[in-house]
Amino acid sequence: MPASTSQLTPPPPLPPAVIAAAVRAALAEDIGSGDLTAALVPENQQALARIITREAAVLCGRDCVDAVFAALGAGISIDWHCRDGDPLSAGQLLCELRGPARAILTGERTALNFLQTLSAVASSTRRYVEAVAGTGATILDTRKTIPGLRLAQKHAVRVGGGMNHRIGLHDGILIKENHIVAAGGITTAVRRARTQGTTVLLEVEVETLEQVEEALRAGADRLLLDNFSTALMREAVALRNRLAPGTGLEASGGIDLQTVRSVAETGIDFISVGDLTKNIRAIDLSMRFSFSAPAAP
Amino acid sequence: MPASTSQLTPPPPLPPAVIAAAVRAALAEDIGSGDLTAALVPENQQALARIITREAAVLCGRDCVDAVFAALGAGISIDWHCRDGDPLSAGQLLCELRGPARAILTGERTALNFLQTLSAVASSTRRYVEAVAGTGATILDTRKTIPGLRLAQKHAVRVGGGMNHRIGLHDGILIKENHIVAAGGITTAVRRARTQGTTVLLEVEVETLEQVEEALRAGADRLLLDNFSTALMREAVALRNRLAPGTGLEASGGIDLQTVRSVAETGIDFISVGDLTKNIRAIDLSMRFSFSAPAAP
Amino acid sequence: MPASTSQLTPPPPLPPAVIAAAVRAALAEDIGSGDLTAALVPENQQALARIITREAAVLCGRDCVDAVFAALGAGISIDWHCRDGDPLSAGQLLCELRGPARAILTGERTALNFLQTLSAVASSTRRYVEAVAGTGATILDTRKTIPGLRLAQKHAVRVGGGMNHRIGLHDGILIKENHIVAAGGITTAVRRARTQGTTVLLEVEVETLEQVEEALRAGADRLLLDNFSTALMREAVALRNRLAPGTGLEASGGIDLQTVRSVAETGIDFISVGDLTKNIRAIDLSMRFSFSAPAAP
Amino acid sequence: MPASTSQLTPPPPLPPAVIAAAVRAALAEDIGSGDLTAALVPENQQALARIITREAAVLCGRDCVDAVFAALGAGISIDWHCRDGDPLSAGQLLCELRGPARAILTGERTALNFLQTLSAVASSTRRYVEAVAGTGATILDTRKTIPGLRLAQKHAVRVGGGMNHRIGLHDGILIKENHIVAAGGITTAVRRARTQGTTVLLEVEVETLEQVEEALRAGADRLLLDNFSTALMREAVALRNRLAPGTGLEASGGIDLQTVRSVAETGIDFISVGDLTKNIRAIDLSMRFSFSAPAAP
Amino acid sequence: MPASTSQLTPPPPLPPAVIAAAVRAALAEDIGSGDLTAALVPENQQALARIITREAAVLCGRDCVDAVFAALGAGISIDWHCRDGDPLSAGQLLCELRGPARAILTGERTALNFLQTLSAVASSTRRYVEAVAGTGATILDTRKTIPGLRLAQKHAVRVGGGMNHRIGLHDGILIKENHIVAAGGITTAVRRARTQGTTVLLEVEVETLEQVEEALRAGADRLLLDNFSTALMREAVALRNRLAPGTGLEASGGIDLQTVRSVAETGIDFISVGDLTKNIRAIDLSMRFSFSAPAAP
Amino acid sequence: MPASTSQLTPPPPLPPAVIAAAVRAALAEDIGSGDLTAALVPENQQALARIITREAAVLCGRDCVDAVFAALGAGISIDWHCRDGDPLSAGQLLCELRGPARAILTGERTALNFLQTLSAVASSTRRYVEAVAGTGATILDTRKTIPGLRLAQKHAVRVGGGMNHRIGLHDGILIKENHIVAAGGITTAVRRARTQGTTVLLEVEVETLEQVEEALRAGADRLLLDNFSTALMREAVALRNRLAPGTGLEASGGIDLQTVRSVAETGIDFISVGDLTKNIRAIDLSMRFSFSAPAAP
Repeated sequence: MPASTSQLTPPPPLPPAVIAAAVRAALAEDIGSGDLTAALVPENQQALARIITREAAVLCGRDCVDAVFAALGAGISIDWHCRDGDPLSAGQLLCELRGPARAILTGERTALNFLQTLSAVASSTRRYVEAVAGTGATILDTRKTIPGLRLAQKHAVRVGGGMNHRIGLHDGILIKENHIVAAGGITTAVRRARTQGTTVLLEVEVETLEQVEEALRAGADRLLLDNFSTALMREAVALRNRLAPGTGLEASGGIDLQTVRSVAETGIDFISVGDLTKNIRAIDLSMRFSFSAPAAP
Repeated sequence: MPASTSQLTPPPPLPPAVIAAAVRAALAEDIGSGDLTAALVPENQQALARIITREAAVLCGRDCVDAVFAALGAGISIDWHCRDGDPLSAGQLLCELRGPARAILTGERTALNFLQTLSAVASSTRRYVEAVAGTGATILDTRKTIPGLRLAQKHAVRVGGGMNHRIGLHDGILIKENHIVAAGGITTAVRRARTQGTTVLLEVEVETLEQVEEALRAGADRLLLDNFSTALMREAVALRNRLAPGTGLEASGGIDLQTVRSVAETGIDFISVGDLTKNIRAIDLSMRFSFSAPAAP
Repeated sequence: MPASTSQLTPPPPLPPAVIAAAVRAALAEDIGSGDLTAALVPENQQALARIITREAAVLCGRDCVDAVFAALGAGISIDWHCRDGDPLSAGQLLCELRGPARAILTGERTALNFLQTLSAVASSTRRYVEAVAGTGATILDTRKTIPGLRLAQKHAVRVGGGMNHRIGLHDGILIKENHIVAAGGITTAVRRARTQGTTVLLEVEVETLEQVEEALRAGADRLLLDNFSTALMREAVALRNRLAPGTGLEASGGIDLQTVRSVAETGIDFISVGDLTKNIRAIDLSMRFSFSAPAAP
Repeated sequence: MPASTSQLTPPPPLPPAVIAAAVRAALAEDIGSGDLTAALVPENQQALARIITREAAVLCGRDCVDAVFAALGAGISIDWHCRDGDPLSAGQLLCELRGPARAILTGERTALNFLQTLSAVASSTRRYVEAVAGTGATILDTRKTIPGLRLAQKHAVRVGGGMNHRIGLHDGILIKENHIVAAGGITTAVRRARTQGTTVLLEVEVETLEQVEEALRAGADRLLLDNFSTALMREAVALRNRLAPGTGLEASGGIDLQTVRSVAETGIDFISVGDLTKNIRAIDLSMRFSFSAPAAP
Repeated sequence: MPASTSQLTPPPPLPPAVIAAAVRAALAEDIGSGDLTAALVPENQQALARIITREAAVLCGRDCVDAVFAALGAGISIDWHCRDGDPLSAGQLLCELRGPARAILTGERTALNFLQTLSAVASSTRRYVEAVAGTGATILDTRKTIPGLRLAQKHAVRVGGGMNHRIGLHDGILIKENHIVAAGGITTAVRRARTQGTTVLLEVEVETLEQVEEALRAGADRLLLDNFSTALMREAVALRNRLAPGTGLEASGGIDLQTVRSVAETGIDFISVGDLTKNIRAIDLSMRFSFSAPAAP
Repeated sequence: MPASTSQLTPPPPLPPAVIAAAVRAALAEDIGSGDLTAALVPENQQALARIITREAAVLCGRDCVDAVFAALGAGISIDWHCRDGDPLSAGQLLCELRGPARAILTGERTALNFLQTLSAVASSTRRYVEAVAGTGATILDTRKTIPGLRLAQKHAVRVGGGMNHRIGLHDGILIKENHIVAAGGITTAVRRARTQGTTVLLEVEVETLEQVEEALRAGADRLLLDNFSTALMREAVALRNRLAPGTGLEASGGIDLQTVRSVAETGIDFISVGDLTKNIRAIDLSMRFSFSAPAAP
């Protein structure tokens, strides 16, 4: 891992209530009226189970795994060998679980689903972060997320080394094309946004250099350059440096792992990437059991 | 579209309560304490918005889009030009929304997130279904799903032409390797499963032909052949035909679009594919606005 | 108790989340804004309380009692002398509770309400199971349940030695008379059911021997013989044995404790009984206190 | 029906939020991930369905039936031919439903479960109320209820012509034997109850005439005579008339339909009956369909 | 503090479920998607924090503070130096918290918000209670409360030494002017109230001495004298003593700390005061930290 | 009303889901198991009701009133004569309600509680906003709010003309004294805050001019001057203008209506006032009825 990500301050954890609600919903989906396979395992059977990754990844979701097994209330202990944000190699042991075999089997799939999904987001983010290493550009997520999973996905982006754009429509203002049309222009839109009772970050989406200039003069905190060529991005950076050096510039629009570095090298401050959270390629994990005591007949 | 999928009975809709809960959670994530951009648009501004797909896909999620805008309570009407399960071409118009511009903009991202995610699942499923067309094999999903989204994903699989494996641990029994070890053998495990108070479908995961034979004799309703070669699958089919012709055979384990047809041609009845629900490649959609009346200054 | 029930595999427990929700609702009903009698008991008063049954019964509801007192958070310990499914005689001690008198008194009625209701279901089921002992027939419940209590009642049926019919409309298909009329015939209905994306158990309700034959040929997994005479049931069994020996036969319709054995002796496989869950005759229980330390003045 | 019950003020309805929560829970139990039989019925098939009672009963649960079908959101209209509290004869038509056959079939069982359970409570209550007609005694319920269904059951008791004892521990004080022991006597217990911040009705459970006298002198609003003989009840009435004529007297303890009138004739004011709500004998109802248009093939 | 309040029976605690729901909502408001300041504090940093009051007050809200920190799940211990209902002087130490600095800082504001709000209600109540000390009048609250906080506020009133009027429309009947008009008179209204299935306390709001007399004769349990002069209150007391000495009299309408004693001295039994719960003057509290171990760099 | 406030952009409305949850909780508190006074009013009685303010105020809470009566589902129509944010004079008519008398009476208190509480916050805010009119200073709220009511209170602040500080710990960073101590200094704390995955506004609380300088140099977006004298505030303003003119300055600490203007005149940008949301002086409102049709006997 490059130095840059290891120097990040670890992000704040997901709040216990957020994790609890997500875990409750996921267990309800999977257990419903009861685990019909539980009775196949003797009640007193103890087990040791190991979670292994079959491919390289960045870990994310430890707290969710802990919460899944805690919710089953069976006294399962978990011994973790790595932390959220750690890079993992294929075959690496993530953790060992000890406790009643029934409860570990009941929670297995739900726990792995959290881990394989959130680690997917963290791993994807890490690849983008590494691709722009040394350029000074910061990778941001978007609001293109899986319905119901946004807070967890935004957390995974931070774990992967990216930063969060606004969580939703309430904690940041992004004035987009349609708002500009509806408000009657960038300057009017910025003025209306500034006088409605909030001091959150105010960003304006622009599509031309003329709009860049208008938005800089209107006093936006940040500009989102929508589908600019890298040449135009460089011009926008120069314009910003001249007119409003304190204003951030963000590139967006179909940027992928192939193109992200050339974007970053334009001098842009932020690059937002929908791919981080709208697409998922689950990490391949498995849980392996050994039964520590012979089962009663 | 091949004849086979067009002859499918349309699946039952997601229950209104399931949709309502999912939409409530997704809107809460995105709107939180209030949409700070709403005030940028004049209160009386009306708009016409069109949802377009930028790539070929199978539609899924109409009910969720309807529920998102209904939840905003602003009298938005939606005129759909296609139905769940319809194949879409790049550039095709999905629907037209008419109503207050503020509310349409507030719901835009949440609605698109449902549509791009669920259509992704339906589209992926359809590709597998078409790959096995004419073989008699049925594509099944698994419990490897995105936490919190299982019911909607399972619905999307049906919309795509696949069938559902059990929803969770409560509506079907799959006796896996660890249960067999814990119970002390396949025959014992099947007997315990049959005497615990349920008559749901009983399936046994097997890894060798010897286990195939034991599970067939033990009276399982279906067998899951885990990571069998296609040669071994053919032997299992022959064995089944001889010993227990009414028992279903399911193949599983790392089957992808490249390999699925050769698996289907072994005579297997079901093929379960984790890729359908654990991976997501969001469909590329956009919402385009035209403001039907000039905005008040 | 006859051998048959003691050889049953104990059913899977109700999921913790299901119990927690039921207990939360029941405590909210009973405590509301606060127990106004709590202040009548000195805060430091400790008590020993015993739950006794005043009549013979089959125990069900231990987990709910545990959850009621755990929810009150007062450190009450419970020492159980019997397990769910155990037959109890009049006067038998079920358990001893030790802890703060206030909290035990606050939880008393809610705990007893769970126990007297669920034990009623288990006891009623056990009577039917014993009535058919040795015949090979299995007692099933129905969807005629007390609103809000279905999962707990279905669990109590299993504890009593019966098996569960489908939990609801989602985990099994029963094609009833109205579906047959609407679909245009049994064969069409079965075909539609088989092609809509699920592989759950498929049952057809029939009213004549002609329908029995059609349903057997259509490939139903099970037939529900609605209000057949025992003579007709024997003919249906013979027909089934000849045409489709793997298909199950279920009798239903006004069967009670007087008639259930004669039904079972027809060779039928399952008998479903609405009485198990739609009627409740609460078991007569009481909680007796002794205050282990003199109350402070 | 006797004049007395027809002169009752109709009770307040169950609050919409209480009904909505009960209906939501019951539909979730029954529909779960989706009604698998819905697809058997053509989407455009309309139906007329009639709910009939097969036995005499007192109706209760109209609002719940309305709420069940409203929750399904399919535009079903219901034409009621009777009101909550009406006496029904065997074979009587309760209501006619018109709308999409699919949605009526989906809601059928949940609606009937509410109606058969709540009408059972109202009918049982009505029998007790009629048994004491003309005596001046009022029939009360208790806290021995089905977990989760208390508010609806208490409502059904009022519909049947009974009155409600306290809903729970929060809206009335009943000082029972254990409280008296813990507090150190009736007088102390009453004093503590009167000084803890509430002015709700205060009742004391007594077991002897000495306790009757002490409780009357302590200023209780009402006395619960626990398991008194009718002879002792008469003495208690005389004592009350002499010492505290404004204080109510309530009889309780194993009173059933055979004994309730002799209890009422002692001059007691209230008789509380656990049987009203802890036991359920579901009313036998059915829904009969006719499909108003031929189903599409 | 005067003897009268110290002799009150401590009120029943708020039910754990009520506290848990309030704390969950308050933490969700304050923490949302995560505490962004948590990462500023080293993960292993321990702290000792003290809650101090900067002004005299009556303590209320201990259980809520305990629940806030318990919900954060970080093993914080709290050592209380006073109890709900205790009078506090400016500068007094309320409690000491020990545990991880991060979690204490995360919960600080939510905990103080509960304490400053509920202590405000208890303190205000105590002032009214002391103002009428020795008169025999009891201070009551009303239904004029902060939406969502009623149960906690009613609890704080009891902690302050007042008593509760009905919690809501369900646990007491107050026949107000509009009900009298709608019912057609006091006597009719009382009769209808008495025959609708409940035995809760029945109170009538009156505006003239004629209405006092009618309500007394109609058999109300209590009368609410709305905006009576103290002279008229005395006449009402005299009338009551003559006609129905067991009936309570309550004064209401714009009574404040200046006027409450003169009202109490009329011989009235209860005085209800909207000011107790509709107005809040938060108690000035602060939490002071000392970090018990040097922070890691 | 001064020009400044009338030129504000109206704030975004509270999200429907937030209002619905608040109204549901408030109605549950007030109605519980049912409105026992509903039966006093004939079922078909129609009413016209008017909400009047008895004192000058700024209106806030219209949406909540609408939602209260909509939740009762009785077809009540509301004709509003003013909008949120409007200044009201004593005696002014706010709105007229028409519909069933029962339902209007059931909702009366809950609706008024929302209106009197939220208008209190808006009115208090307006007084502060007017006190600083013309100075360029903006009035902000704090996190000192009534538990459970924060979003509604923050909305009322905006309606009153103030702006919102962060909603909670998740949408803005305020580095306070304890964080500085724990992190080991302002510069370190700011650096850690900047590298943890968010780009929200970053503010530092300072207590001396030395800290002002360090925080300005560290690159904070805004400084909170804690308990500065106005003389020191002026020095801080001068320092800011020299070192980092783009950085905002906020005054805080015991500022009230008497002192707020002198603070504003120092050149400070923001003034945060706990009084806005931690104290409530409910606006005096009343609902007056006229029954539009004679009540049936």
